[in-house]
Amino acid sequence: MSSTYTVADYLFDRIAETGIDEIFGVPGDFNLSFLDNILNHEKLRWVGNNNELNAGYCADGYARLRGFAAMVTTFGVGELSAINATGGSYAENVPVLHIVGAPVRFSQENHLKVHHTLADGDYRHFYEMAKHVTCAQAWITPDNAATEIDRVIRTMLIESRPGYLVLSPDVAAAEIARPMGHIRDDIGELTAQNSLKAFEKAATEFLAGKKTTIVADRLIERYHAQEATDKLIASCDLPYATLPWSIGVVDNDSPRFVGAYWAAVSPERTRRAVEEAERLITIGALFTDTATAGFSAEINEADIVSIDPLSARVGHVEYGPIAMADAIEAVTRAIAAAQPVPQPLADIATPARPEPDQDAQLRQDDLWDLITTWLPSESILVADLGTSMFGLAGKPLPKGAGSMGQPVWASIGFALPASLGASLAEPDRRTVLVSGDGAAQLTVQEISTMLREKTNPLMLIINNAGYTVERAIHGPDALYNDIPQYNWPQVPIAMGGDESNTLVLRASTPAELKKALAKGWDTTDKLVMIEVMMDRDDVPTSLANFTATVAQGAKKNS
Amino acid sequence: MSSTYTVADYLFDRIAETGIDEIFGVPGDFNLSFLDNILNHEKLRWVGNNNELNAGYCADGYARLRGFAAMVTTFGVGELSAINATGGSYAENVPVLHIVGAPVRFSQENHLKVHHTLADGDYRHFYEMAKHVTCAQAWITPDNAATEIDRVIRTMLIESRPGYLVLSPDVAAAEIARPMGHIRDDIGELTAQNSLKAFEKAATEFLAGKKTTIVADRLIERYHAQEATDKLIASCDLPYATLPWSIGVVDNDSPRFVGAYWAAVSPERTRRAVEEAERLITIGALFTDTATAGFSAEINEADIVSIDPLSARVGHVEYGPIAMADAIEAVTRAIAAAQPVPQPLADIATPARPEPDQDAQLRQDDLWDLITTWLPSESILVADLGTSMFGLAGKPLPKGAGSMGQPVWASIGFALPASLGASLAEPDRRTVLVSGDGAAQLTVQEISTMLREKTNPLMLIINNAGYTVERAIHGPDALYNDIPQYNWPQVPIAMGGDESNTLVLRASTPAELKKALAKGWDTTDKLVMIEVMMDRDDVPTSLANFTATVAQGAKKNS
Repeated sequence: MSSTYTVADYLFDRIAETGIDEIFGVPGDFNLSFLDNILNHEKLRWVGNNNELNAGYCADGYARLRGFAAMVTTFGVGELSAINATGGSYAENVPVLHIVGAPVRFSQENHLKVHHTLADGDYRHFYEMAKHVTCAQAWITPDNAATEIDRVIRTMLIESRPGYLVLSPDVAAAEIARPMGHIRDDIGELTAQNSLKAFEKAATEFLAGKKTTIVADRLIERYHAQEATDKLIASCDLPYATLPWSIGVVDNDSPRFVGAYWAAVSPERTRRAVEEAERLITIGALFTDTATAGFSAEINEADIVSIDPLSARVGHVEYGPIAMADAIEAVTRAIAAAQPVPQPLADIATPARPEPDQDAQLRQDDLWDLITTWLPSESILVADLGTSMFGLAGKPLPKGAGSMGQPVWASIGFALPASLGASLAEPDRRTVLVSGDGAAQLTVQEISTMLREKTNPLMLIINNAGYTVERAIHGPDALYNDIPQYNWPQVPIAMGGDESNTLVLRASTPAELKKALAKGWDTTDKLVMIEVMMDRDDVPTSLANFTATVAQGAKKNS
Repeated sequence: MSSTYTVADYLFDRIAETGIDEIFGVPGDFNLSFLDNILNHEKLRWVGNNNELNAGYCADGYARLRGFAAMVTTFGVGELSAINATGGSYAENVPVLHIVGAPVRFSQENHLKVHHTLADGDYRHFYEMAKHVTCAQAWITPDNAATEIDRVIRTMLIESRPGYLVLSPDVAAAEIARPMGHIRDDIGELTAQNSLKAFEKAATEFLAGKKTTIVADRLIERYHAQEATDKLIASCDLPYATLPWSIGVVDNDSPRFVGAYWAAVSPERTRRAVEEAERLITIGALFTDTATAGFSAEINEADIVSIDPLSARVGHVEYGPIAMADAIEAVTRAIAAAQPVPQPLADIATPARPEPDQDAQLRQDDLWDLITTWLPSESILVADLGTSMFGLAGKPLPKGAGSMGQPVWASIGFALPASLGASLAEPDRRTVLVSGDGAAQLTVQEISTMLREKTNPLMLIINNAGYTVERAIHGPDALYNDIPQYNWPQVPIAMGGDESNTLVLRASTPAELKKALAKGWDTTDKLVMIEVMMDRDDVPTSLANFTATVAQGAKKNS
């Protein structure tokens, strides 16, 4: 190896400064040469994935825990295979840097008909496509490399969205000066102090003496506002809720925690705590169709102090740019000054579900209670969309347990590779994956990477022979909701597993599942797959309520 | 079911008129309702795939044989997962219609934050992205449905490129009048007669008395010009060649056939037949970097009559629009009038390769001869990129045998799902898939669909523990070219196979492979997988020559 300091060295040094250890992706002839720079980097490690979509999901899962991730693919074919994952990272505010290996500049400048292009001489198609799903893009040259690499990474860190870099092998090998300072220098200057003061003043007037409830959602994690949120909640006596898929973002044990607000399908006590309040303070909340059961939330923007990723609102007036943590601190001060009144909570107990027969067929409604009750606090729960996420909606998790899903983008198959990313991001915690069989089939090959990387996850595959969430929506008996029936216990074996590194269990009853979970958790040196056998047409009550509410809303709007 | 005739009925009736029987894809909540129209259609059948990328490849393979294909995915997540396959269909001139199920118009018009969007209220992102890889797009409304559906399908049939339709369930269910006439009416009027006459006149003058060779390539198949090409070749005494991956498009048995031209890595006799001719007539030829071993072709545009998909050129002068078959007929007349001289062929025999030791480790150079010599004429050979396509480059195929690959887009993993599409497109022929283990892992789950559909392919998986084509290019011992080691015989079993529908064989020597091929071909009622065990670092000589030539060219241009 030459000791020349190159563009590739610069890029990977800057990436290492974000604090990550792994880079994901799939090799291709336009990136091979600079993959060598990763292999030779003292702080980074290459983790090859089984395909590019899986690499993108894996990087997304990693970035949700580590605050940044990077993946490398090849021009055209590789990058487009990954672009759905990048769309998910964009929709869900996850900073994944996508580095694309491109044909050399000679080919670009002469519009040569090179493989992995559309053979029309135009090399910009995929860059233009990437613009829609990334917050910053750059086509790296030796001259712009330092400026553009820094700009893209810094924009990603501020906006918490994916970024996109095109790098050809000849540019990667070009000599360049070493970086100045640290990539995180000059970040954090986002907030305009005048806007912040105006926001705080408006929020103080807006909240004064009003009956108020706080609603916290997942974006708190993305914008590093966990600590500020905890302090805000601790500083006041207001009741607080989450949205259905963010229950772990606040302390669930306080009597002021009223559960997960899910609009018309909320528990009645939660619904009233939110909808009857005179004022809401929402923090990082995204009221999508799924989070509101088809926009059935009876809340009014005019009554909300909304703390969003890069700005904040008081009623209809927006203030920005303001970093989320700064806005939360401002609201903490506003509450102290304005003394809003805690929204009184209705005295409605949610009836406890009867304990299921331990030896009867496991039901969806019991499955999710069983999993969340069992879940060890040192685990990270990664759930796919479908019955898994609907079943888990609003369920309290043990303190300390992490959780991850994709409620906005909602791309089935996300969870399996994302759980690999989670395992690699936090190797000291154990990843628990919950996925339906239909979802798991989309990205199943990443099990082979789990085996190679010895991440030893505990996987629950819900075997109910089809796309159950879609059966609940439409076509309960239509053949398009059927899926090929895998022999799940053979899947890890086919992908390189054997008795030394794989444990496969099966459970059909609550008793069997409890036993399997206990054994699986104790088996820390193997990939554990528990095949959970469920009835084909059984769905969580939460999902049934959700689809009924959405159908009603759709009727109203058609 | 209501007897109302709807937009969905119109769409699927028009699709059926193209002559296809199957529609591919993955269900999602925004397309479920109109999947019912497929289930209820008397001529169409729904074939669900294991994920969207696989659906796209499968549809591409189907369209290469049937002249059209259609697939259905869901908004955002589904369509972006498939978009790499669509890019391939665009680059390789394959008409696949991509129908995307979208949120209802009420959501679109009110910019609602719906799942499967970027939650920014903008529903046009993915449409804008699709424009780069499709030749026609439409956002269907009840008012424009008839016009736009017809326009998109007709444009696809003329241009032989993919198309894109956005359809929401409410629009799909809207009432509409039945179609007038047939979708293929008004197609075929592409050629401007004045242009055609001018082209013929110019070609006649250009060819008169000149030493000439014909070069035919794959696009002949895409533009339905096979018959015209056969007639042109039969009408004259000119020698003819193909490019490396199109050897089956012309009669290989004639003494005038000089083999596959592959620029600097051609057999010497072929190279001289092309490069020393005073004039070349190229038909549907795409001189990409891979087809020319890094642009090492010593040919001159000024000496070429080039028949392209929608136009034709004489030297540097372009004539159009002209349909390919019309241009070929014009050149046939020009040859008869101008009497170009057959380019004399050098008297150089290609030395026959020695017969390998039948019981020694099978070598790459022998593998491809063995496969192509064995290949039954009633089969369709589908080869992935990598060692498979490089090994097969320029190899003659038995008369009648079909073949399929993706030499321009070159997306590894294409072949496995494409072979499923090929099997379904021509159920009376048997599909033979050849794929490296690295490539097959990207899209491996589609084996489950083969089993469900009982297509009973004969699959050869080349097990050499890695991305061998990339090892040949860069990093022969780098860990990024390693892949997880699958237990290949277990793979079909894991995906639903058993002894009743699956036969797994393994071969390490020429004798074993011959035996396995014979047994596999005779086993017509099962999916047959032959795991071909090869040395990790063994590559076809053709690939070694190719990479050496490309490296030399790259040096020159850097």
